[in-house]
Order: sequence, then structure tokens, then C-alpha cells
Amino acid sequence: MRVLVQKYGGTSLGTPERIRHVARRAVEAAGRVCVVASAMGDTTDELLGLAEQVSPAPHARELDMLLSAGEQISIALLSMAIIDLGRDAVSLTGAQAGIHTDTTHGRARIVDVRVERVIEALDAGKIVIVAGFQGISPSHDTTTLGRGGSDTTAVALAAALDAEACEIYTDVEGVFSADPRIVPEAVKRERVSYEEMLELAASGARVLAARSVEYARNNRVPLHVRSTFADTPGTWVQEEAGMEQAVISGIAHDTSEAKVTIRGVPDQPGIAASIFRPLADANVNVDMIVQNVSAAGHTDVSFTVPKSDLATTEPVLQQIARAVGGDDVTTDEDVAKISLVGAGMKTHPGVAADMFDALAEAGINIEIISTSTIRISVLIRAGDVERAVKVVHDRFRLAEPGVLEEAYGER
Amino acid sequence: MRVLVQKYGGTSLGTPERIRHVARRAVEAAGRVCVVASAMGDTTDELLGLAEQVSPAPHARELDMLLSAGEQISIALLSMAIIDLGRDAVSLTGAQAGIHTDTTHGRARIVDVRVERVIEALDAGKIVIVAGFQGISPSHDTTTLGRGGSDTTAVALAAALDAEACEIYTDVEGVFSADPRIVPEAVKRERVSYEEMLELAASGARVLAARSVEYARNNRVPLHVRSTFADTPGTWVQEEAGMEQAVISGIAHDTSEAKVTIRGVPDQPGIAASIFRPLADANVNVDMIVQNVSAAGHTDVSFTVPKSDLATTEPVLQQIARAVGGDDVTTDEDVAKISLVGAGMKTHPGVAADMFDALAEAGINIEIISTSTIRISVLIRAGDVERAVKVVHDRFRLAEPGVLEEAYGER
Repeated sequence: MRVLVQKYGGTSLGTPERIRHVARRAVEAAGRVCVVASAMGDTTDELLGLAEQVSPAPHARELDMLLSAGEQISIALLSMAIIDLGRDAVSLTGAQAGIHTDTTHGRARIVDVRVERVIEALDAGKIVIVAGFQGISPSHDTTTLGRGGSDTTAVALAAALDAEACEIYTDVEGVFSADPRIVPEAVKRERVSYEEMLELAASGARVLAARSVEYARNNRVPLHVRSTFADTPGTWVQEEAGMEQAVISGIAHDTSEAKVTIRGVPDQPGIAASIFRPLADANVNVDMIVQNVSAAGHTDVSFTVPKSDLATTEPVLQQIARAVGGDDVTTDEDVAKISLVGAGMKTHPGVAADMFDALAEAGINIEIISTSTIRISVLIRAGDVERAVKVVHDRFRLAEPGVLEEAYGER
Repeated sequence: MRVLVQKYGGTSLGTPERIRHVARRAVEAAGRVCVVASAMGDTTDELLGLAEQVSPAPHARELDMLLSAGEQISIALLSMAIIDLGRDAVSLTGAQAGIHTDTTHGRARIVDVRVERVIEALDAGKIVIVAGFQGISPSHDTTTLGRGGSDTTAVALAAALDAEACEIYTDVEGVFSADPRIVPEAVKRERVSYEEMLELAASGARVLAARSVEYARNNRVPLHVRSTFADTPGTWVQEEAGMEQAVISGIAHDTSEAKVTIRGVPDQPGIAASIFRPLADANVNVDMIVQNVSAAGHTDVSFTVPKSDLATTEPVLQQIARAVGGDDVTTDEDVAKISLVGAGMKTHPGVAADMFDALAEAGINIEIISTSTIRISVLIRAGDVERAVKVVHDRFRLAEPGVLEEAYGER
């Protein structure tokens, strides 16, 4: 019998009552079940708060030792609750579950998953509860996997256990055609491909971290994103092959980035490299980039960076501007990005035009455009974001059943 | 250069400010320092509270997984704080520090201490911060050592590292001739022997758990009990040899026990066994025992048990009474025990008489007496306890310098 991996996020485990609820879900799944748990609710933030009070710049190895206590608490509580329901269970830390990583504390990469102990416990009829987000380095130190780490743990275990599926339990019911808080008539997608999910994740959809989707794609682990608090099926994330291919899979929006503009840059070979190499060296994640058409041998370069990186980016930017002889550097936090994602877009060239058209009709100005084969993103004013998502959702009739697949005719 | 082991209790680490204070103390100690840390303040109680909300009878292995997170948090924070002061440090869990135990979850016994990793880190110039109270079982599960467990960890590490001393930092300044809250003129003892400390610990002095004192005695580890919040020397606990031997080392009191009386028990061989065997089987810790002189073939048996055990003891007591044909069982929580401890007592037979005399003059009735070679304990009414401690302290002139050693003349 194949293993089912279930992953529960912090909100799903936020209180003792919710932990007992999750315990019932795990027991109801019957069969061979491996549960991956995040830390309870705000535990990680509370621990980070303690660290800040003790040290202005907490040592990375020690921060991992600290944060990993959070999952240790939740797995122990969940295991107790399951045992109370009459099913045997055992909690395992990342190290005990064989999650071996490199030594990059704070954002370690999984290098090996040795599941002997997990299999032994499953064979003994136990539900195995594994601490998400953490692993062990070659020097026997506890590491953490960074953002989306518990999802990654779940996918890695599912791959190593050749699980039938990896269920990601969260506080939303699946992947929607747009954020239901903005577009109440948004529809839940039954399935999306790994590629679509990756683009959605990179475009601001918070339901899954891109890294875990990539890991799932590379190891062909079917993901099932669903709600902890409802029994309805969620959204399957799986291989494109054999899937009804949607033209549009959904609209994502993201208000976490800021726009940076360097004006009056001499238009000469190598200028882009001299701007973006120093940013890369400073670990700043540059997203959309646009370079204006040159005028009188000079041009303006704009790009987006995470708002959270802006403080550390500013001095680098000033240096860059001086080095390349630019006139000035301006930053603008009042922007938002909306992205239209769909695997079928590749073969339907009209999609981008339709999107721009819908925005134009609504009087929404586009400041930057970037595209991939299955995604179109535009940067607009932050105040326009809700209206933009709505008009695009309307234009593609994403709320109408069947439309997702048929809007652009035959494939 | 020999290692110094420092152990800090939960109160000493109760807030981020206190953790930074402890970090400074550890750095000031200079040289090769190994710090053992308890969980912060009320962390353990909070985790126990969570466990109770999740499960009425938490599974022992899972409870250990849960509780051990508490020390993991404090060692990481303390290590960060030390690194911030410019001294290198590394935190180690019980498992990482080589604290190997048996599999008795909740009150595991240390079976081996493998300090290779600790020594390696000390050799690299680091202050090593070890999680107290926890270890690892042969099945690679986290275990906890039970009451006083962090003291035991500290002493075990000090023994394995052949440390020059094991400093126990706490919220009192040392071992006093009586509780200073009752007897303001009580004096701090400069030194007490392991045996005296054992008797004091067993008699209600909370400064050190008996188990860690025993471990220290067996491994000849000198203990130094002192305050985290003051720089004055505390009390040394060490071997009797070469020590100025005090007749009286101190007075301890204990209000945590209740008196149980079974009346009308037939006075025949085997009757004591049939009372105390079932209690031992029920894990009830019986302390003082007295059996009255027989009258008409019947006698009354009284003994003390921890008040916390009373609820679980009661049904066993009723069974016992029926089995032995006793008349009735009464329990009395309104009692207190005061104990006079001193190694010199062995050679000074007048001590007990003087103690009884002092209590009699104060009109305090003695209900049960029990003695060892270096201790006299009496059970009295709870309401008399403060007065009793005071009159005995006065009688032996324990507040006067020099008197501790000289009161009973030549040795």
C-alpha cells in the first residue's frame, strides 16, 4: 500500500483544538500516512521576536537551533493527539526523519532523504509526524530550509517514499482563478500544471512556495492543495501530460515589490551588466526589467525589487548610478504587479493584447510589461490593483464554467 | 587549563535581558567554559499546559519531545547573546552534547556521557552551551531527566570533563542555616558536605535536587551554589575530608507532605509490609513512619506522603485498611516537617534532646520523629512551622559566627 503524505501549515495547527482536528483528519485518512507539520500559528514569529531582543543580528546556526524548536512542539502535540484517538504515532525531528541538507543555515537545501526510520515506523502501523522546515547538516547541526520549507519537506518525503500524493493542507480551498477576496466569483481550479503553479507562485500567489513546486515537478510528485477546514477536494498540481490544458489558469497579484528607475544612463554595451551584476552580488532579487528606447545616447532603466530588500538596495543603487554616470535614482513603492498565467497561452497569441485592452478600457496605465511563454505580467499603480484583477478576470470570463478551457477555441 | 561548568536555572534565564546578563557572566568567566541552561522561566509549564489541552494523558515519549524544545530555545538565545559579545559560542542539544540515557521517558537516567564534541568546541575557543534536562536514548529518541534534571546534566558534564568545579547559578545566594524568609538572621554557609546537602535536599531545601548532589558526590565534583544576580561567593558543596566539620549545617522545613494514619491495625508480624508494599507498588514516596506501642493487640500506624500523591494514594489506603483489618484511615494535610542537619551530629548525642527541648519550651507538639546519623526531623502542626524554625535556629545560636563549628566543643 502506498504512502499518503499530508502537510499542515501553521494556521491549521494554531490552537490545541485545531491540533486535535488535524489529528482526526490524519487518522481518518487510514492506511500508511506520513504527516509533515509546521510550527503552531505565530510560534516562529514569536521566536524571531525573542532572538531580536537578545541579539541585533542573530547568528545563523543559532537561529536555526532556535526556530526548529517550533516544529518540535507542534509534532509532539500532534502525535499525542493521534495516540489519544487510539492510533499509534511517533513524531520525528527533521534529523530523525533523515532530512539531510547542506550547511547553508536559514535556507538550507535538501541533499539527501534517508527514510529508513520513517518506513520502519510506517511498517509498525504508526502514523509518522515529521517536523517540517528543518534538517540536519553534515556537521550534525540543525538547519532550516527557509521560506516554504515545510512544503519542501513534505514533497521531499513524498518523493523518497514514492507516495501516491502529497496533500498540502492550508487555510484556503485550493488554487483560484483570482484571489476570492478581490473577485468573489473566482472559481477553484480542479488542476493546474507544475509550470502554471510555478508561474503563479512567482507572481504572488501564496498558496505554495515555488521551490516546493519545482521539487515536486522534478520528482513527479502529485500535489493536492486543499483546506484543513473543509472536506471538499482542492486543486491538483501535476504533470501537464494528460491534463485538460487551460488557456488561462489564473490571475495573481503582488504588492510586495517596488519600482526602481535610474535615469540618464549612457546607452552603450555592457551597461545592463554594470547595473545588475552589483545587485546580484548584493543578493537582491530583481524581477521585471525595462529599458527605454534611447534618446540622445541616453536611456532610463526601470526594474522591480522586493520592498523588503529596498533598504539594503539603496546604497548599492547610488553606487551603480555614480559608476554608470546616470542622472538620478528614484524608487517607488506605490506599485503592484498583476499576472495572467496559463499553459495554453503559448498557442494563443491574442491573450496579451486582450489583457492590455481590458486594462486600457478601465483607464489603468501599464508601467512595465514582462512575459514568459505561459505568463504575462504588468506593473501598475498599487491603487488600481483590485480593479485590474477584476476587469481582467471579467474579460477572460474566468468565472464561467468551461470557459477556462474553451475561451480560445480548439487546441 | 581545566573546564568550568556553569549551570543557570529557568529564573536566571527568564527574560531576554536576563539572558544577556547570563551571557556576560559566562564571558567574564574567561577560559574554558561549558554552560548548562534550563528552559526560560515558565516555558516548561506552558508546554505542559499545551500538552494537557491536547491530550488528557500525554504519551511519555512525545512529552519528552515537547518539553525538550524549551531548553533548545534558551540555549540558542544564550549562544546568540554570547556571540554578540564577541566571544565564539555554540549551543548543543543533550544529544549533540553526548548525554546518553536509558529509555525511561520523563525520568531517564544518564548511562554515558560522550563529550568529544564538547571538547572539540572548547578546543576551538568556543563557550559551549548545553541544553540541560535532556538526553538521547539508545533508540535515538529524546529523553528528559525529570526533576532537577538540568543540575544533573551539569554535574554529569563536569564529571566527564574533569571540570575544576560545577557552578550552580540560581536565585538564592547559597545554602543558609535556615530559610532567610523565616529567619532573617540566618547565615549563608561557606561549605557543606555532600551528605549534609543530600539530607537538606531530602528535607525540603529546594536549592539543589538530591539526585544531582548524589551524582556529584559519586564523581567528586565540587559544586558551588551561588546567585546569578550577585557577585558574592555562594556555598561550596564538597567532600567532608579536609572540611571544617559543622555540628549543625542548617535547618530545613517542608510543608509539601501530608500525614496518614491507619488506626486499629492488628499488631502481628508482616503487618508493616502489607501496608507499605502496596504503597511502593503505587509509586508513592513514603517518608516518616511511626508505629504506636501496641494496646490490646492493636496499634496505630502513621506516615507521611507528598500531598501531591494524596489523590492517587487514597484508594490504595482504603484497600490496605480493609486488607489488614484496620479501623479507619485519616489524612491530615495541616502538617509540616522541620529537619536539623549536620555532619558533626554523629558525635554529639545532645543535639536531638536540645531540639526537642526548644520546641517543648515554645509549646510546639511533636507528632512524628525520624532520624538519620546526620539529621533529626520532626512533624509538627503546619501553623507552628515558622515559630519552630526560629526557636531551633535560636537554640543552636546558628546566626552567630563561629558557632556552627564550636557549639558542641571539641571534636
